Amino acid sequence: MTDVQQKPDTISGVKHMKWWGWGVEGVAFHHDDKPAFAPFVKKIVGVELTQGRHDTGLDIGDLTVPASLASSAVVDKLTAIVGADAVTGDDLDRVVHTYGKSVRDLLRIRAGRLPRVPDVVVYPADEAEVQKIVDLAVAEDLVLIPFGGGSNIAGSLEPLPAEARPVVSLDMGRLSKVLDIDEDSGLARIQAGGQGPDLEEQLNARGWTLGHFPDSFTHSTMGGWVATRSSGMQSDKYGDIADITKGLRVVRPGGVLAIRAVPSASTGPSLREMIIGSEGRLGVITEVTAQVHRLPEKREIIAYLFPSWHDGLAAMQAIAESDAAPSVTRVSDAHETAFSFATSKPGKGISQKVTDALPLLLKAKGWDVDAMCLSFIGYEGSPEHVARTQKLVGKIVKANRGMSVGTGPGKLYDQKKFDTPYLRDFFLDHGGIGDVSETAAPWSKLRAVSNRVYAAANQAFDEIGKQGWIMSHLSHSYHSGACLYFTFAFEYTSEDVAEAEYDVVKKAIQQAFLDTGGTLSHHHGVGLEHAPWLEQDVSAEGVAVMKGLFDAADAGGNFNPGKITGP
Amino acid sequence: MTDVQQKPDTISGVKHMKWWGWGVEGVAFHHDDKPAFAPFVKKIVGVELTQGRHDTGLDIGDLTVPASLASSAVVDKLTAIVGADAVTGDDLDRVVHTYGKSVRDLLRIRAGRLPRVPDVVVYPADEAEVQKIVDLAVAEDLVLIPFGGGSNIAGSLEPLPAEARPVVSLDMGRLSKVLDIDEDSGLARIQAGGQGPDLEEQLNARGWTLGHFPDSFTHSTMGGWVATRSSGMQSDKYGDIADITKGLRVVRPGGVLAIRAVPSASTGPSLREMIIGSEGRLGVITEVTAQVHRLPEKREIIAYLFPSWHDGLAAMQAIAESDAAPSVTRVSDAHETAFSFATSKPGKGISQKVTDALPLLLKAKGWDVDAMCLSFIGYEGSPEHVARTQKLVGKIVKANRGMSVGTGPGKLYDQKKFDTPYLRDFFLDHGGIGDVSETAAPWSKLRAVSNRVYAAANQAFDEIGKQGWIMSHLSHSYHSGACLYFTFAFEYTSEDVAEAEYDVVKKAIQQAFLDTGGTLSHHHGVGLEHAPWLEQDVSAEGVAVMKGLFDAADAGGNFNPGKITGP
Repeated sequence: MTDVQQKPDTISGVKHMKWWGWGVEGVAFHHDDKPAFAPFVKKIVGVELTQGRHDTGLDIGDLTVPASLASSAVVDKLTAIVGADAVTGDDLDRVVHTYGKSVRDLLRIRAGRLPRVPDVVVYPADEAEVQKIVDLAVAEDLVLIPFGGGSNIAGSLEPLPAEARPVVSLDMGRLSKVLDIDEDSGLARIQAGGQGPDLEEQLNARGWTLGHFPDSFTHSTMGGWVATRSSGMQSDKYGDIADITKGLRVVRPGGVLAIRAVPSASTGPSLREMIIGSEGRLGVITEVTAQVHRLPEKREIIAYLFPSWHDGLAAMQAIAESDAAPSVTRVSDAHETAFSFATSKPGKGISQKVTDALPLLLKAKGWDVDAMCLSFIGYEGSPEHVARTQKLVGKIVKANRGMSVGTGPGKLYDQKKFDTPYLRDFFLDHGGIGDVSETAAPWSKLRAVSNRVYAAANQAFDEIGKQGWIMSHLSHSYHSGACLYFTFAFEYTSEDVAEAEYDVVKKAIQQAFLDTGGTLSHHHGVGLEHAPWLEQDVSAEGVAVMKGLFDAADAGGNFNPGKITGP
Repeated sequence: MTDVQQKPDTISGVKHMKWWGWGVEGVAFHHDDKPAFAPFVKKIVGVELTQGRHDTGLDIGDLTVPASLASSAVVDKLTAIVGADAVTGDDLDRVVHTYGKSVRDLLRIRAGRLPRVPDVVVYPADEAEVQKIVDLAVAEDLVLIPFGGGSNIAGSLEPLPAEARPVVSLDMGRLSKVLDIDEDSGLARIQAGGQGPDLEEQLNARGWTLGHFPDSFTHSTMGGWVATRSSGMQSDKYGDIADITKGLRVVRPGGVLAIRAVPSASTGPSLREMIIGSEGRLGVITEVTAQVHRLPEKREIIAYLFPSWHDGLAAMQAIAESDAAPSVTRVSDAHETAFSFATSKPGKGISQKVTDALPLLLKAKGWDVDAMCLSFIGYEGSPEHVARTQKLVGKIVKANRGMSVGTGPGKLYDQKKFDTPYLRDFFLDHGGIGDVSETAAPWSKLRAVSNRVYAAANQAFDEIGKQGWIMSHLSHSYHSGACLYFTFAFEYTSEDVAEAEYDVVKKAIQQAFLDTGGTLSHHHGVGLEHAPWLEQDVSAEGVAVMKGLFDAADAGGNFNPGKITGP
């Protein structure tokens, strides 16, 4: 490897998350101001949060980073394309580009398990440079892995361990502009490397919003959302990324695959829908023409309580089938509701409201507080639309035995909605594994999915001899069904077996999805993590057709090989 | 060829349209009761409708049908699969399965131009039989062309003229059942060969509707809609077929590609969206799990008038961006509006209403009657939803200088909406070519599309030395744009040159779509007819990727070869 050395955060201003966890240095989850939290966690999974950091002193210097396999000739050719400032073989930068931010990724990186890291990282400045890099990859038989914000949790970014060819991580961070807004049509041309907050800022400045707010929003990119079929919290109004994406530019060997932005088309199998979710296997997405909306006049999130999960689900379904058109429909099951209460600060938010109201509730309604479910419904648009939708939803909530607890908790939810990964990392610091797994299924199957996942997770916890925790919420409602989003947690035995323990639980949950009519993933993609279930989801013939597509489009296997359909 | 002989209409009750035109025998367009129509047509294109039928005495016996290339061994093997009653080499049946119902198809079939017809027609009874036929096609190197209602107008059904292998038309007419409705989720499992009215009847009987009403509704099928990316008149509410289609079963060599019905999924490139629009090239669609809706409590179509095309378009755009959610948004340009008036019966419908109101309008508003544009907006749902939507739309109409003319014309439109193809055939009988071509484009480009198409069509009419007519309407509104649907007409010189004259006009219009940012087709598919423009629409790289998909999925080229990407 050459002597190219560069601090990753200084390359043309492209920022990365810390190498060992989510988000930026200096931001972290605290529990000191949430007195109920540590006892709650102690109770549900036995993890002791008050005894200081479990893993401390993480230092990049402690890692053994394998030597780069990129010849200086290859590095020179890359340098000739992007310039010396935009190529790096720096260990830290290579490590940062090795994994996404799943729990498995963090376990591996914290334990220094780095069987294969990208050999070189390049930061192209524009599409023309991407084209040259793509063509070089084919000519020199390199492996190219596009990298957005690095937030992926499905194993879509890591090089295959046995990969003998030089692996290039293509960091799209310099392509971060909103290039143009067609204000008449509500269509914005957006570069693939732009991260959520930066893009929203550019759009908001002109009165527009993309309306796409996945949990990863603060550290994920336009191109990444498209490449993994992302979905945001306000998808009920703005749609999944497949609805939002109208036009695309994808750099392929020899030229750009350009799909013009039209509202709908009858032009054979949808190339747009082949690129969406392709995780780099069909080329490098450089530009997305996305549907954007005028910033809403009014925006409000109201919290509701339901006496049971059954009632909460029934209400969400009734809302989805009604004339009401809220921007968010979300209801937590009893476990997640209890968890939410435990993370609240005293005198603030939902915890206090419920505490105040509890005696009254119990008396008047005869509710079982342990079965109670918290819901958030979002409203956006003209004041008149918001008022009318709230009225329609209010009726449905009432018909399903629920009650409003006002906008206070909703505001809190809105502020905290991107913080979960920090909590996950904090938990990991203290020896606990917390992770998420989500599916979508028809309304008729949601309860079966939920029941089976609980049973499967609890059986898996037994299997590994752990006191585990499982909880979920419904988000993303559709006419015919919804997304169920599960979070599970347990204390791992040791760093050596943590991944194996994790696998037992994760596999049980995924299999429960497939066994009950759900899909393997609603919005986290496939990568390597979910590839084993793809055949159960889309059938063997489906996988064969998909493999045929990839093989035909990438005969040399240069573009993120092994992802989605498996190595 | 063997001696298998069977009247096509008697095979297991599968009905077909007449071989020389649209629809069923005995149903036809009349102009006797529309006194303004013949003079109007005479004026705009010079065609004389009152002088009796131009083409008469069409008789299947006059056609020279090429001999079948199917060996008796092949026919025997097909017979062994489906039974003798469900295989036919009858000339009429083979002719019926040769083309769709485009003007080009009718010109060719009426002139007896049959360079290649299917060699044998089979009517499988179920998916298992389809599987055996598909496997036989690969084993014996046959060409398989799935056939639904035969309503296609993009050349998706015809065998390639140079095809030397035996061509089997796979008529799906016996698979016509709604198999199951998941009433909780609004998901219906529907067999691919079911035709519109039959399927709606089965669904309506249980209180449901698919809400999919393309112009071809009366003679098109579930499988055909999916295979060609159809869109119905009420797509604003129910979505295009790509929105409606949730699950799919597609018979491929060796097995079924099964996509489970989930509301949304993040499972790599969308196989569902590869099958949709695939026109038989990826296998045979046998079953669709479709999103269905409860029959609306109330349904109403209101007609509006706008002083200009510009105002009409602006109103539709404002509606699409508003909180209103109508089921239909449609506005005709001035030419099409004049055409609508000319087809009305005296004392009824829009013509009379406008006639009555005209003096008042002219006086009060100073409108130019020749520029006036007729619009239909549809409302469906609860009475309260309908009332509120009408109020919201009413405000937008007013703000764009339009006025309501009530529900009378809407009722008429609703009754007549599937009749246009009969009018087209009647016109053809009298020496006139009338055809349609549609696109979709962003709102910002619609006026440019419209202007360019008019200019291109008029230039093409000049080129062929004809007095031509072009008109259009907007239908299918989306957040970012809409579909523009053009109808053009002229009197052809003779049967010998009619196709060539047609080509000049058709090509000019298609090219105008592509030159102004539109797509080559909004809902009619690609087939052979639109294949020449595919590269301009989705780029050369896009076509290459699509070809790669087809070649990988169908190495022998057995499945409707040549369609979409060209022969």
